[in-house]
Amino acid sequence: MNELIILIQCSDEVGLVTKITQVLASNNLNIISMHEYVDTHNKKFFTRIACRGDDLQEEPFKIEMSEKLPHGAVITIVVQQLKKIAVLVTKDYHCLGDILVRNQFKTLGAQVQCVIGNYSYLQEVTQQFSVPYFHISHHEKDKQEFETEIRNVIDQFDIDFIVLAKFMRILSPEFVENYTKKIINIHHSFLPAFVGANPYKQAFDRGVKIIGATAHFVTNNLDEGPIITQHTASIDHTYGVKEMIRRGRETEKAVLLEALQLVFEDRVFISGNKTIVFK
Amino acid sequence: MNELIILIQCSDEVGLVTKITQVLASNNLNIISMHEYVDTHNKKFFTRIACRGDDLQEEPFKIEMSEKLPHGAVITIVVQQLKKIAVLVTKDYHCLGDILVRNQFKTLGAQVQCVIGNYSYLQEVTQQFSVPYFHISHHEKDKQEFETEIRNVIDQFDIDFIVLAKFMRILSPEFVENYTKKIINIHHSFLPAFVGANPYKQAFDRGVKIIGATAHFVTNNLDEGPIITQHTASIDHTYGVKEMIRRGRETEKAVLLEALQLVFEDRVFISGNKTIVFK
Amino acid sequence: MNELIILIQCSDEVGLVTKITQVLASNNLNIISMHEYVDTHNKKFFTRIACRGDDLQEEPFKIEMSEKLPHGAVITIVVQQLKKIAVLVTKDYHCLGDILVRNQFKTLGAQVQCVIGNYSYLQEVTQQFSVPYFHISHHEKDKQEFETEIRNVIDQFDIDFIVLAKFMRILSPEFVENYTKKIINIHHSFLPAFVGANPYKQAFDRGVKIIGATAHFVTNNLDEGPIITQHTASIDHTYGVKEMIRRGRETEKAVLLEALQLVFEDRVFISGNKTIVFK
Amino acid sequence: MNELIILIQCSDEVGLVTKITQVLASNNLNIISMHEYVDTHNKKFFTRIACRGDDLQEEPFKIEMSEKLPHGAVITIVVQQLKKIAVLVTKDYHCLGDILVRNQFKTLGAQVQCVIGNYSYLQEVTQQFSVPYFHISHHEKDKQEFETEIRNVIDQFDIDFIVLAKFMRILSPEFVENYTKKIINIHHSFLPAFVGANPYKQAFDRGVKIIGATAHFVTNNLDEGPIITQHTASIDHTYGVKEMIRRGRETEKAVLLEALQLVFEDRVFISGNKTIVFK
Repeated sequence: MNELIILIQCSDEVGLVTKITQVLASNNLNIISMHEYVDTHNKKFFTRIACRGDDLQEEPFKIEMSEKLPHGAVITIVVQQLKKIAVLVTKDYHCLGDILVRNQFKTLGAQVQCVIGNYSYLQEVTQQFSVPYFHISHHEKDKQEFETEIRNVIDQFDIDFIVLAKFMRILSPEFVENYTKKIINIHHSFLPAFVGANPYKQAFDRGVKIIGATAHFVTNNLDEGPIITQHTASIDHTYGVKEMIRRGRETEKAVLLEALQLVFEDRVFISGNKTIVFK
Repeated sequence: MNELIILIQCSDEVGLVTKITQVLASNNLNIISMHEYVDTHNKKFFTRIACRGDDLQEEPFKIEMSEKLPHGAVITIVVQQLKKIAVLVTKDYHCLGDILVRNQFKTLGAQVQCVIGNYSYLQEVTQQFSVPYFHISHHEKDKQEFETEIRNVIDQFDIDFIVLAKFMRILSPEFVENYTKKIINIHHSFLPAFVGANPYKQAFDRGVKIIGATAHFVTNNLDEGPIITQHTASIDHTYGVKEMIRRGRETEKAVLLEALQLVFEDRVFISGNKTIVFK
Repeated sequence: MNELIILIQCSDEVGLVTKITQVLASNNLNIISMHEYVDTHNKKFFTRIACRGDDLQEEPFKIEMSEKLPHGAVITIVVQQLKKIAVLVTKDYHCLGDILVRNQFKTLGAQVQCVIGNYSYLQEVTQQFSVPYFHISHHEKDKQEFETEIRNVIDQFDIDFIVLAKFMRILSPEFVENYTKKIINIHHSFLPAFVGANPYKQAFDRGVKIIGATAHFVTNNLDEGPIITQHTASIDHTYGVKEMIRRGRETEKAVLLEALQLVFEDRVFISGNKTIVFK
Repeated sequence: MNELIILIQCSDEVGLVTKITQVLASNNLNIISMHEYVDTHNKKFFTRIACRGDDLQEEPFKIEMSEKLPHGAVITIVVQQLKKIAVLVTKDYHCLGDILVRNQFKTLGAQVQCVIGNYSYLQEVTQQFSVPYFHISHHEKDKQEFETEIRNVIDQFDIDFIVLAKFMRILSPEFVENYTKKIINIHHSFLPAFVGANPYKQAFDRGVKIIGATAHFVTNNLDEGPIITQHTASIDHTYGVKEMIRRGRETEKAVLLEALQLVFEDRVFISGNKTIVFK
């Protein structure tokens, strides 16, 4: 018996769960776990079903399911396999280091195809893990040129997601649109506080008693994309900017890796500017 | 349209969700939210379904549902109404105070029918809230006599749950059996650490860096009943027993009130020595 | 032997701790605990010393200490006694309820002299605790008139601090200046995110995964005063505004009461727009 | 001006802070930060002083200080330098991976001299970081022989601390005594709950709602050594042992690395069976 995950999102209407479970039953799919959520504001329905079955014919199944559901339903069948990712970095090693260690021990839920950095600082550590590193400097290039080089590398691989692991350049709308719902960023504040540059400096100036980090999908509104996970950590008056950065690293790393696990296990839906996360 | 909650627990088998949702549909019950869980160790299935419908005939519905489910299924229909509770206390005011304030402002999810204390310390504050207080001393009585007096008071009321809000007497097996799965206790440690008396003293002696509290159903194995919620708080070397008790109060209060809300909203199933909590 | 707390703040210079401890020794004051902090940005020094001694002559001691310290040092001697407070409320009961319970059981660290509300909703619960309640409506009054009435009540009492326990009116600069460093507010977001009105609505619209609360001193820059304590709580996509408000109450209450305890124990210094909190 | 850290522990008596600060002043040492703590149960005094000064003559300074302090005072002067450590592992990669990454980027606060494993699983990842790995199997050896081989490796290096990064063999009293107060272990439960083997299995059987991890110094009482740091994480009924292990890894890693940072910065004193941690 194979395990598979079925993701459905569609307009909400009465009786959806019954209809969906009937189609599953008629295809001899046994439900292991099922999550559903109705976004009552936008009248949308989301479900993630983990199930077991044999010899599922994917296309006929999708057609049968579609006929029972409201027009426009999106049905995805995930036969368990590792996602393929590219990681973009600048100088900070802590998120990348954790990704590379997990990648090597096969607990990341994805395979790192390549690391792209706008500096060479992280080349050595990447190559220690036998992962290809591409140094693409942004110096003396316009943004379009810089991003074209990045895209040329990414598109060599069959990438499911791009992870910005403390990549400190702002990507253009053209770049982002090319990878809609595929780019995940870690932002070093509890958004929406301290958007933009130097959030720890902003946090220090304001005298906050907590700092945080936010993993989110990237859209063309800077720091405004759908939030996947957030965590905070308590600090006190003895923390200068330097101590906040050091403490913040731990939170950033934990938040990003938690978000990646959720995304790679197909637990995250995007609905407008928000996420639905089935844990 | 009325809102109601349907709770089902039964042996696990293939196709349960489909069968259940079909019965719901044939009775014109529209699912608002549905949680399900399979305890694969004990092969048991649990579901909590919030739904809307009109004119449901409860008994015919239960018969129809039972016929589709494995033998021995327990089906409960909760038409939304407040639970009725008795609160047992000794000297500590903090849990009781929070319960009484919420009770008055109708955010407890239950109605406090009475408070029973083995001292008179908390009589005044209880009566300030116009809740009846029964002072039943344990002095110069054997346990059976003491508990008979408590039962006589409790049984005057139509009680759904008994809340031990820092009640510091151990209840006898006879008492507990009489209110199976109806007694909720707050224990001032992160069980199973520091069972028994003076957990903060034990915590101090051990030099732990976290303290905690545990809300659990009471069984005849002291401090061994099914855990509903637990939380912890960080402490350091400057905490003596007195400071731990002060800090611990905040955690105890928060943990107990969270557990009560979950229980009163019918979100907690008991399965053997564990709970399933649908948040 | 009496316990007392000595608070000193002054410009920083080399050797301050030595000088201060010498004066303590020459006055037979035995240090129980000592906290110090140097704000290197503003070159300011802060210390809180808990000590024991007999027959301290406060004025000669202050003069002796001042002579050893940089010009402009502020020296405060606190002989342990309860602070006196006024509480301002609107409609939310949860912070007030907790304050009143602790006040009655003498664990607040302060004595509530009066509660002032711009509605009458919380009159009954206040009076249950035998605390005077003043209903001062803001309707059909200009702000100056409204605040004059409040001040007339407050000034009847010998108030150390004014606690805004979910008081939903913005106080004028004139009012605030009259009680500099004496007004403590609980704001229902993790400032500086979601300043202004309806922070939970803002949080919902943004799709955050954490909500929070902030206790701060009130200054004339709305929501910009020195932060004392902040905490956050995790939420998920199932939380609507109503659920956030319900969950948020627990955080608000915990944050405000923690802040009050710190302030009432003279553990909080204000330095510019920040606080130094000696826990 | 050099930065140095002075650690003092001695019997408590009146006036110690004054005496100590006078000696610092007479040696032209300027205090940057000072922490002190009196263990009133054991009448012991502990202080950690970070200060700046020039040309300190360590031995004369220690003699001068000793003469002012109670007999038996222990005075340590730490001129800032990296600690040297050996890491012992079995099969789990997550703590070791984090240590190796930080070691390479010089943010560990120590230099890893060698990694010793009783299996060869972690040899490759260690060597990727150009750190020597010694595979010392425990198979077909008695404990004494096994430990002698380990000691022979460790003693090649000038080791300050031995880190047990999920090393799953119990060390003999002889081994432990040889490295008193120098061995730090990460235990995968919130001690003292679930001592001994398979704590996650124990946690699963008990149905707890939180799991945790504990970093502690190793003594000859298994799992009873002085605790440095502890953290917990919330879980629910859906967590089997496997999911607890996966979730637990994150906590273990965070707790161990936090403890190591504190120890390597000389912020941790051991007093009997407890630690004093100056953060």
